Amino acid sequence: MNCILLPDTSFQNGSAYINDLTQIAHVNKVLDAKVGDTLKIGQLGGKLGSAIIKDIAPDSIELGEIKLTINPPLKLNLTVVLALPRPKVLRRLIMDMTALGVNDIILINSYRTQKSYWQSPMLDRLDEFVLEGLQQGIDTVAPRISLQKRFKPFVEDELASLITNRAIVAHPYSALSFAQYVQQQRENPELLHNSALPSMVFIGAEGGWIDYEIDLLAEQGCTAVNIGPRILRTEAAVNVILGQWLLSDAKMRLL
Amino acid sequence: MNCILLPDTSFQNGSAYINDLTQIAHVNKVLDAKVGDTLKIGQLGGKLGSAIIKDIAPDSIELGEIKLTINPPLKLNLTVVLALPRPKVLRRLIMDMTALGVNDIILINSYRTQKSYWQSPMLDRLDEFVLEGLQQGIDTVAPRISLQKRFKPFVEDELASLITNRAIVAHPYSALSFAQYVQQQRENPELLHNSALPSMVFIGAEGGWIDYEIDLLAEQGCTAVNIGPRILRTEAAVNVILGQWLLSDAKMRLL
Repeated sequence: MNCILLPDTSFQNGSAYINDLTQIAHVNKVLDAKVGDTLKIGQLGGKLGSAIIKDIAPDSIELGEIKLTINPPLKLNLTVVLALPRPKVLRRLIMDMTALGVNDIILINSYRTQKSYWQSPMLDRLDEFVLEGLQQGIDTVAPRISLQKRFKPFVEDELASLITNRAIVAHPYSALSFAQYVQQQRENPELLHNSALPSMVFIGAEGGWIDYEIDLLAEQGCTAVNIGPRILRTEAAVNVILGQWLLSDAKMRLL
Repeated sequence: MNCILLPDTSFQNGSAYINDLTQIAHVNKVLDAKVGDTLKIGQLGGKLGSAIIKDIAPDSIELGEIKLTINPPLKLNLTVVLALPRPKVLRRLIMDMTALGVNDIILINSYRTQKSYWQSPMLDRLDEFVLEGLQQGIDTVAPRISLQKRFKPFVEDELASLITNRAIVAHPYSALSFAQYVQQQRENPELLHNSALPSMVFIGAEGGWIDYEIDLLAEQGCTAVNIGPRILRTEAAVNVILGQWLLSDAKMRLL
């Protein structure tokens, strides 16, 4: 938790109140903060800044001298379509994608997604995982998350309208590598001022995509690319792939 | 477990034997394999290939028709120097760095490393985490791992001799971004045929490096670079950063 995010309703007349027990425990146990100390805070959906601790009670911490002046970092111009993973890894995946600054997350069914995953109580806790990711990545704006339980209708009827600047699907059996794809795009005179990185990436869960899914995606103009012969855990693969956007965006911001 | 790795001693007269209970449980419960089925296997330190299950007993699986003809994937030309992380995340970090193909891993002390981490029993289990990483990434060659409990003597006396093609340290407070650094290297006429990516990267654990550490590293020619304003979990940061080598290496292998 690298900042403490509070909803609009926590701010009143120049004060703010931390009532969430996880946040209170963090202030007390991890930060070991006392009355008078400064905290890094943010307003959900708003700005980042700081506040001073005025009072600490077991179920509420009062903050004053609220300064919220810093814009949250830019989002990645990226929609991630992720095959719904095992519930056990869903929390860290949502956290990481949020901390990395993904704009839109679509959790989709795939042939290799076990049906039982859609009944997992973890799916009711996405807001909580997003809050953890925002507080990790020091951001205030939640990504949009949608669930798509039917692969074919989504791909055939909705996908085309969601692709703003090309789409790729990570697939170990593709002959084209991610690096080759990016190089091709850089040399493409039709690219004009668009980024060489696409605006949408499909990432499978354990076992990846079947040929039928890759073919359906190809029909909508989605290019399959490999990330080399090594098979990574879903979490590792997501961070490796999205890292390409994060590091290229860092460059665009700072140059 | 995307392949089952066996030590030399498991191979005898054209047969091989799985005696490790974790591997036996994987064959039975995850793969649900029967006598006559084909398994993806590898010889630790040797080649990859396949074998046929000849017999399944509770404490041993016999394999025949052993074919070991495939070379393991190339390693990344990279040494990762990682501030010793919390024992809880050490397993996944070692697994991920191994699966990604890191050549050398140096676990080092840092100002923000808690002293108790060096007493963790997890440090006696590194070989086990490496095996998990190799079986995940379908590789047979373990990375070299060394422990460096003293930061200053290591940096002052040993580091220079270990840097074959430049070193960087990930540091959020550096003004230079990773992308800017790589761009500078590409434009550097002295780079000749060396990769624009350095051969060594220092990554901090929670809390990162202190200025004194960054200064000591700078004296040895190690450049500090940032990966943007977002703070990532150590695991996520490691995969984001090492992904730059993985995807560039994939390109070098395939072009």
